[in-house]
Amino acid sequence: MKLGDGVEQAIHCVTMLSRLSEGGVLSAAALAEFHGVSTSYLLKHMQALSGAGLVDTVPGPKGGYRLAKTPEEITLLDIVLAVEGPAPAFRCAEIRQRGPNPLPGRYFAKPCGINAAMLKAEKAYRAELAKVSIADILADLEVTDDGGIAARGCAFLEIHERKTAR
Amino acid sequence: MKLGDGVEQAIHCVTMLSRLSEGGVLSAAALAEFHGVSTSYLLKHMQALSGAGLVDTVPGPKGGYRLAKTPEEITLLDIVLAVEGPAPAFRCAEIRQRGPNPLPGRYFAKPCGINAAMLKAEKAYRAELAKVSIADILADLEVTDDGGIAARGCAFLEIHERKTAR
Repeated sequence: MKLGDGVEQAIHCVTMLSRLSEGGVLSAAALAEFHGVSTSYLLKHMQALSGAGLVDTVPGPKGGYRLAKTPEEITLLDIVLAVEGPAPAFRCAEIRQRGPNPLPGRYFAKPCGINAAMLKAEKAYRAELAKVSIADILADLEVTDDGGIAARGCAFLEIHERKTAR
Repeated sequence: MKLGDGVEQAIHCVTMLSRLSEGGVLSAAALAEFHGVSTSYLLKHMQALSGAGLVDTVPGPKGGYRLAKTPEEITLLDIVLAVEGPAPAFRCAEIRQRGPNPLPGRYFAKPCGINAAMLKAEKAYRAELAKVSIADILADLEVTDDGGIAARGCAFLEIHERKTAR
């Protein structure tokens, strides 16, 4: 089981966007530069976040991204589902119905117990991710930051944030 | 996030092997036939189960696989980790340390809060999988089976089970 690199990048980007001032946006190129990742790759994930309604896209040469919700309203689950898609990790292929001497369909009216158990575990995983908002991530970071991490982010935004009518 | 098809196949194979009689083994070809999957693909997963100590491999022309533990001792987590590997789904690339104007290493002594939150969710997922044994899967199946599913398995084993000195 593996999550794509996009999840880490998307969570960091949403965290960064939460630091923008009112009416400010950040380009995908700036987000990519700050996180040391490929812009073209990041664009795909930003589009996924936009499609899920987590970020707004402001078009045009002075455009960019900003959050569509508050940091309190965006959970890690929202971001994981936006980037990875809604399908569960375990995808039952109903192999219980294959092979020789197949049984009548009535034997498979109830979902396979293996599938049910796997989905129950994924439900626990998702419930845990749903408990953590971007505001929680920011609060957790502030506890250990003596100001250096925040100052670095602010200095970068000072240069790269674009002002746009909200 | 996606688990490979191998997880479903491996869980079904372990369940099937739990029905073998004392001293009996089943070949990979028979397991593949019963589940309607490719033998060469299944072999890879059986080797993973063997490597994890969940099944024993009896070599030779009359050889095959049998469980190395009781169905009570094998959990879904054991099988998922055997087939998918032990690495967590979220693999932190420490992108917080990339980009312009990097901060000194002391800022990153504590694990990234994003990584910690993602791993906490995975811990919940694994805990849930660890609660379910193959014995539980079998018990759950027996509740809804009027005998047809068990009879089909028994008829297949009657033909394909190989007897070997244990």
